[in-house]
Parts: sequence; structure tokens; C-alpha cells
Amino acid sequence: MPASSPSAPVQDARFGLDRHLHLSEPLPLASGQSLAALDIGYETLGTLAPDARNAILICHALTGDQHVGAPNPRTGKPGWWDRLVGPGKPIDPARHFIICANVLGGCSGTSGPGSIDPATGQPYGMRFPVITVADMVAVQARLLDHLGIQQLHAVVGGSMGGMQALAWAVHHPERVRAVIAIATTARHSAQNIAFHEVGRQAIMADPRWRGGDYPPDDGPADGLAVARMAAHVTYLSEQGLTERFGRRLQDRDALGFGFDAEFQIESYLRHQGLRFTQRFDANSYLYITRAMDYFDLAQPHDGLLAPAFVPAARAGVRFALVSFTTDWLYPTAETKRIVRALHAAGAPTSFVEIDSPHGHDSFLLDAPEMNRIIAGFLAHNG
Amino acid sequence: MPASSPSAPVQDARFGLDRHLHLSEPLPLASGQSLAALDIGYETLGTLAPDARNAILICHALTGDQHVGAPNPRTGKPGWWDRLVGPGKPIDPARHFIICANVLGGCSGTSGPGSIDPATGQPYGMRFPVITVADMVAVQARLLDHLGIQQLHAVVGGSMGGMQALAWAVHHPERVRAVIAIATTARHSAQNIAFHEVGRQAIMADPRWRGGDYPPDDGPADGLAVARMAAHVTYLSEQGLTERFGRRLQDRDALGFGFDAEFQIESYLRHQGLRFTQRFDANSYLYITRAMDYFDLAQPHDGLLAPAFVPAARAGVRFALVSFTTDWLYPTAETKRIVRALHAAGAPTSFVEIDSPHGHDSFLLDAPEMNRIIAGFLAHNG
Repeated sequence: MPASSPSAPVQDARFGLDRHLHLSEPLPLASGQSLAALDIGYETLGTLAPDARNAILICHALTGDQHVGAPNPRTGKPGWWDRLVGPGKPIDPARHFIICANVLGGCSGTSGPGSIDPATGQPYGMRFPVITVADMVAVQARLLDHLGIQQLHAVVGGSMGGMQALAWAVHHPERVRAVIAIATTARHSAQNIAFHEVGRQAIMADPRWRGGDYPPDDGPADGLAVARMAAHVTYLSEQGLTERFGRRLQDRDALGFGFDAEFQIESYLRHQGLRFTQRFDANSYLYITRAMDYFDLAQPHDGLLAPAFVPAARAGVRFALVSFTTDWLYPTAETKRIVRALHAAGAPTSFVEIDSPHGHDSFLLDAPEMNRIIAGFLAHNG
Repeated sequence: MPASSPSAPVQDARFGLDRHLHLSEPLPLASGQSLAALDIGYETLGTLAPDARNAILICHALTGDQHVGAPNPRTGKPGWWDRLVGPGKPIDPARHFIICANVLGGCSGTSGPGSIDPATGQPYGMRFPVITVADMVAVQARLLDHLGIQQLHAVVGGSMGGMQALAWAVHHPERVRAVIAIATTARHSAQNIAFHEVGRQAIMADPRWRGGDYPPDDGPADGLAVARMAAHVTYLSEQGLTERFGRRLQDRDALGFGFDAEFQIESYLRHQGLRFTQRFDANSYLYITRAMDYFDLAQPHDGLLAPAFVPAARAGVRFALVSFTTDWLYPTAETKRIVRALHAAGAPTSFVEIDSPHGHDSFLLDAPEMNRIIAGFLAHNG
């Protein structure tokens, strides 16, 4: 095992390590602003090989965190992707050095609007600079620098994690050998932006948002819950909702003719909204959704996507794309657009559309076909 | 022209008449409750034939009103369906006696939560009884009784108006000769309910909602705007949004890296939300969405839809169903389910799916094919 240091403790293949990195160099951002200092909360699993060639970076989605394969030390809940990541799983700490960092703008250890602004000693709130997916990737690159990893075996992510995985190939093609991008998009569509805007307006309409300067224990929970509910509907499919809930009533045999949760779907949504407010920061939700809305890999190339991938193709990056039949948030048609651009750029690309009734959330659920695809792709890129 | 009476003024084929009816008999409701008295705001166009066989009832959608073919006397805006209804149009006051009533629960002249409760002298607020689509139809039936119309030439509606049209055939098969139901459903799906619940929660989370007891000029405008924004996204298609807005920026050449409306779609949605609060009542939104969520014509028949239509088929009611390719709120698959049930029940039914990029809202926009279908269907049912 490598020697330990204060910020790089001894690895243990069985358990995740909840880690933290503080960097005092300023971080330049896509907006032209910069962040004075940077904290990164991250988890590692497994042991970095002496040649540092077994590192896999996993990028989390909008409301995820760094606890991808080991239990969250605060909540005790299992890692959010432990069906894919863990001993005996396709991404295995016995073979891989697995890294997952809370994204820039987040609220789980990495600098975000809830962090203390060193210039004032107060939380940034809405004075935190606006960030992009490219900025998130730049932070991860700093983390890899710190960990002594020049090139990733693979970068893997679903949804916003897939955006980051694609952005790695675009912005740092020499630092990644393989990209696995799942249930994702190369740009946020007008409809994607629209749903995010509904959520942001719900948060900012809550008087307890107070322009972003709310105490941590008295934030805009009602607005954030509505934002989560609206988003949650987009993560599920009509088919999945019908199979799971249909028009079944909640705790009753007949219609109650009132405004309590009559239908199970209402009760479920209210529960999702409430639970979310207990684990996520409203300002982080504003900043991260904004970053996603800004995401458009083709923008610097006059709307053409293939040129964005040419440097990655030249660097020999291999790509695996996965979509799900009932994902209407980032539908298969958008994944096919990415695949066409990758082919046009000359990048080796595999693509599978998986049949699933569970909509966008499929990638977080039991998806044995996805796991087989990832295992196979990683094995052929060893 | 027929003689006038205080509540049935002289008809004029060129202009709509803004009318009002007060009925003091109690109205029994599906919930088992009843409404002590009933106001109905309605518009008529054209002249009722001596045999009263030229009456067409038009049913409006969630946020519509009775001003279907003539300008709204308060706003001066054209009738909301004046592409279909008016001189020389498929539904023509020169031939038809056209009736459109504000729905029960509404806020444009018909009894709703903003009405004065005669028992207290105060607005009902959330003490207004919960209503259903069947109750809306029962109110329209009372209006027809008052107007001396035993049987409608046709009942026509889109979206929630289509639900009412179908409900007419189910609950009053002997009173309608033809049904034209457009962009609609025979039941609200879990996804439909979910989006409505998001809107309701947004309203009820607004502290100015005050349990429904808000002054008319200081209601939960922020929550209502969010509800409208969320709903509005469901009325448009991904394709339509992309064609109309794409990722185009609002009033700028480059990203502003802030939380103002950066993209045109954001500015558009905010405008839609704000404008809606100036014309609609938040409690009405709660009650009418609730009524829509309760809508399920198959519910009394153990989930089978065909039996609901058997009485209409026996009465000789003819049906025309129209759906739009990009309507994902009430998709063609749901219309086909209705058509199959009508065929199984033995009702003469025509069905057309119209190619349109505009999603659910297609029925309110320029839709010449829809107009031709309606004109032809009405002519063959003359």
C-alpha cells in the first residue's frame, strides 16, 4: 500500500474513505470569475496501482454526492451506485482505484454557495460565482493532480455525471482513456431548461429563500420540495408511474373528495419532496441546475457536435454510450446524436439502448444489462 | 328572433352575448355534498332554431372561460377558439346556436371557491365542495334546461373540454347526438396527476395562499405562477420548444452567468406564469385540477372503459376523436384506448391523429386539419 499523508490516508479495498482536500490556489472559472480557494469532498475505494493506471472517476448526477460505493458516513445509507460499484461488481475496488467527488457547487464537502466566503467570513449564498460543467471537471482534474493520477482508466457517469464524463473527453482528452456516459445529453434542450427553470422559480418564490441568505436550518424548504417534485416527475416514465402507482388510492377505498393526498402518486411525490429538503441545499440546487442548463458541447463549434470530439478521437479515447427506452428527459434520440458525432469524429464508440420501464432513473436502479455493458467495456479497455 | 327574457337576451348572430344565470335550487354533487345555489357565466352565439336542434355546447379547458368565439368583454381579447368558432368557421353562429359556459369551480362567472358562500356571506375558499367533471356537466345540463334545449346537436371540447364532452355521452347519452373530443383522455394517468400535484403544492406552499382565505388582490401569485409554468411545459412538445426557442439567449449575445432569464425559454415561461396570475384564481386552479385528477370514466366499471359508452352507443351518439402526434400530456395512445372502447361499445366513431409539432396546445392553435375534420363531422351529423 502507498504511504499515507494527511489528505491521502491509507486505502482499504473493502471500505470507502471519506476524504477532503483543500486547495488554496484560485480556481479560474468559465465565467471569467475565479474561486479564491477550493474544498473538495470525495470518496475513494480500492488502491491506486503503482503505475496509477487503474483509476476510475465516477461523476454523480444533480443531487448526488461522493458516496458512490460505500455507505454515506453521515446517513449510513449505502452508496448511491453500489449495484455497479463495490467488491465483485463491474467497478471493483479489488481492481480499480475508484474516485468520486462531490461536484463544484454542491453541498457535500465541495465548495458551493453554502461554503464560507473567505473574503467575508459569511456563506457565499448567491455571491458564489456561477459555474459550468466544465468547471466541475476542472475541479476533478485538480483532485487527480493531487492524487498523482495523470490519466484515468475511465470516467463514468449517468445524467449530469454523463455530461461530466463527456466534458472530460472534450476538455482533457489526454487524461482519459475511456468514457462511459449513461442516460445523458450533450446539451440541455429547451424542455430541459424549462423544467429546471420551474424548479428555480419555486425556490426563489419561497420567502424563506431570502435572496439566498437563509440560515441553514430555515431555508426555502417548501420551494425546494416543489422543485424536487417537478424534477422527480421527469425522472420517471409514464409507463413506470402507471405500473407502480396507476390511479391507486392512498390509504382508502374510495375517493375522499379533498385536498389530502388521495392518490398514491401524490403521497409519493410529497414524500420525495420533503425528504429531499433534508439532504440538499436550495442554493446548490440553483447553481447546479444552472450549470446543466449552460451545458452544450457543440456551442463553441457553431452548433456542430462532432468537432468537439475530434481531439478525443485523436487521443484514442474510447466511448460507451447507454440510453434507456423510456427516458424522456435525455431520450435515446439525443444519445444517438452524440453517437453520430463521435463516429463522425472517428472515435471508437459503442452504444446500447436498454429496454427499461423506469425512465431516466433507470441508471440508478437494478440494471443488470447496464452493468454487463460497463463490465465488458472496462475489461476490453484494461 | 325569439322573445327576450331577463336571463335570455335577444340573440345576435354576429356577436357573442355575455350572459349570466342564477339558479337557487341546490345542486347535488358527486361527492355527496351539494351546492346551495348556482351561478353560471356563459356566452351564446347565434340563434336557437325553433326546433332547438342546432345547439352546440363547447366545453373549455382547465384555464379557459366562456368567451369561446367572441371577444372577452373584460379584456377585449378574441375568443379563445375563434379559429374554429365564428362567422364562416366550422362552428358558425349563422347556423349553430353556440353555448359555452364557465365550468363549475371556475373564476369567470360560474360558482367556484371565489364565490360568496350564502351561508356566511364570505367567499367559500377551501370550504367550496370538491367537484368532478361529472358535476361540471351537471351544471351545463341545468343551463340547457334553462335554455330549453333537450338535446345537443354536438358537444365539443379539447383537453378538459374533451373530458366533459366524453362525460356528456356517458352521463346524459340521450341529450347529445354527437361528441367531438380533442386532445383528451378518459382518465388522468399517474403522470397527469403528478404534474397537477406539483402545481397544487406550489400554490399551497405560498404563504399568501393562507389556507385559501386570501384577499382577491393579494393571493398566492408566486405559487400560482410556478404551477402555471410547470403545467405550461406539459402543454408544449420537446420538438415545438426546440423549434421555437432552442437554446437561444434572451437579449444578449453571450451567456451572462447569472440567474436572470438567460434563455428565451426562461423568459417565456416567467411571462406565462406572471400573465396567468392576472387572469386566474389560485383556489379555482386547485379545485379544477382536482376534478381532472378524479376523472376516470372506467372507474365505475372495474377499469373497463367500453361499458361506460354502451348507453351512448345505444342512444346513437356519434363520436369524433382527434389527437396530435406530439401531445405527450394526453397522447394518441390514450385516444386510441378511447376509440377501441367506443368500437367495442358499438358507437359510430371516427378518429384522426393530426401531425403537429405543437404538443398538447395544438388544438388551440392554427389547426386547419382539425377544423376540416370538425366541419365535416358536423355536416354529416346535421
